[in-house]
Amino acid sequence: MSTAPAQVRPGHGRPGVFITFEGGEGAGKSTQIALLADHLRLRVPRPVVTTREPGGSPKAEAIREALLAGVAKPHGPFAEALLFSAARIDHLDTLVQPALERGAVVLCDRFIDSTRAYQGAAGGLDPGLLASLERVVVGGLLPDLTLILDLDPQLGLERARARARARAEASAAGETTAPDRFEAEALGFHQRLRSAFREIAAAEPERCMLIDASGDADTVEAMIWGAVTERLPRLFAANRPAGTQHDAA
Amino acid sequence: MSTAPAQVRPGHGRPGVFITFEGGEGAGKSTQIALLADHLRLRVPRPVVTTREPGGSPKAEAIREALLAGVAKPHGPFAEALLFSAARIDHLDTLVQPALERGAVVLCDRFIDSTRAYQGAAGGLDPGLLASLERVVVGGLLPDLTLILDLDPQLGLERARARARARAEASAAGETTAPDRFEAEALGFHQRLRSAFREIAAAEPERCMLIDASGDADTVEAMIWGAVTERLPRLFAANRPAGTQHDAA
Repeated sequence: MSTAPAQVRPGHGRPGVFITFEGGEGAGKSTQIALLADHLRLRVPRPVVTTREPGGSPKAEAIREALLAGVAKPHGPFAEALLFSAARIDHLDTLVQPALERGAVVLCDRFIDSTRAYQGAAGGLDPGLLASLERVVVGGLLPDLTLILDLDPQLGLERARARARARAEASAAGETTAPDRFEAEALGFHQRLRSAFREIAAAEPERCMLIDASGDADTVEAMIWGAVTERLPRLFAANRPAGTQHDAA
Repeated sequence: MSTAPAQVRPGHGRPGVFITFEGGEGAGKSTQIALLADHLRLRVPRPVVTTREPGGSPKAEAIREALLAGVAKPHGPFAEALLFSAARIDHLDTLVQPALERGAVVLCDRFIDSTRAYQGAAGGLDPGLLASLERVVVGGLLPDLTLILDLDPQLGLERARARARARAEASAAGETTAPDRFEAEALGFHQRLRSAFREIAAAEPERCMLIDASGDADTVEAMIWGAVTERLPRLFAANRPAGTQHDAA
């Protein structure tokens, strides 16, 4: 895959702002994305788009369903990584890239670091192979900021299970939901995930910020808002999209 | 992948015309695509776009290179099918779909039937799994017409080798090119391919037409032009794109 375009500096030359959320099960990513989207809509004069991976576009959501049902698992982590890649290509082509070109803030629940952590560090796939695949699939579309929600996996899995129980009690049928393909992995897998996310944060401090997710939602929300205002001043520099300003020329 | 959108009738409701070329190695697909594109440019007042799979867009071309170098082969036909699917999604999203929406005639060298034949019939992948993947990846974007160039694989492989030798002699270094991942397969593989293509033509006569590719280029060209004028009268019905006419409303 040597002909893949070289990766460019995150955020360089595009009007929008791309923020990704990463972390293990139960770390509170979807709650925090909703809270940050609310904040941004009040304070930043740009469209705010929230999305998720795998998924985020019709084709990618169909692939998500197959992935979380475990369709690719018997074919090994490379097949899983490829299926995630197919979904990611459609999501980037049809949703993320057009939104960034319009100057939107795109908040995405999971992105490349989940592939590196789940299929690479925890799944055992060769990091070189994964890096080649990432270069082809993502090209220059790296996040401007990646917030890694860090939590003891034991606590995270308990939160995820409590959430599933609450959902079951709220439903009329009272059915419990089976854990998905990744929730069902043993604790050791989730500990390898946490280490992988922490290593990514340490290796790419310019793009990534580790957020302690053990506190309550308000505490985590305040830390995230602090990170966004500190790392992305161009969001607040003036009341117009950065694409019209010198810092994104 | 049960949530995949249902396939719609080929060509229904889109202004453009999508023609795919299929067949084994050395059947003359790229020559015939160039000849048909020349004819159409002279006779049809629409843009004509020629493209190929795997490839056709920058990401998909990078994946093509990896595929033809055999990167996925050790991971089995499912991994190959997924990598082809990732490339196809990008090609459809960024090139084919926008061109068809503009009313163009898109001529594509290989498409879904190559996946069915190479990874399915000849590669041994479960047809049900492949069909699910195809529904997700292609959705309603089926070809209006598929021309299957039919040729004895022994003759096709001889032609492909002669073409490689001619290319080597024309290059300054005189280096011979190694056969790619698929050219290198044994004759039995190519015979299974031919049977698979013939079965597809028989099973989907409304979309597909089998073309005897054993004659010279002029003879095959005349047969293809006959097929196009017979099967796609809306191309010639009036001097404007079908999107503005009642038959594509």
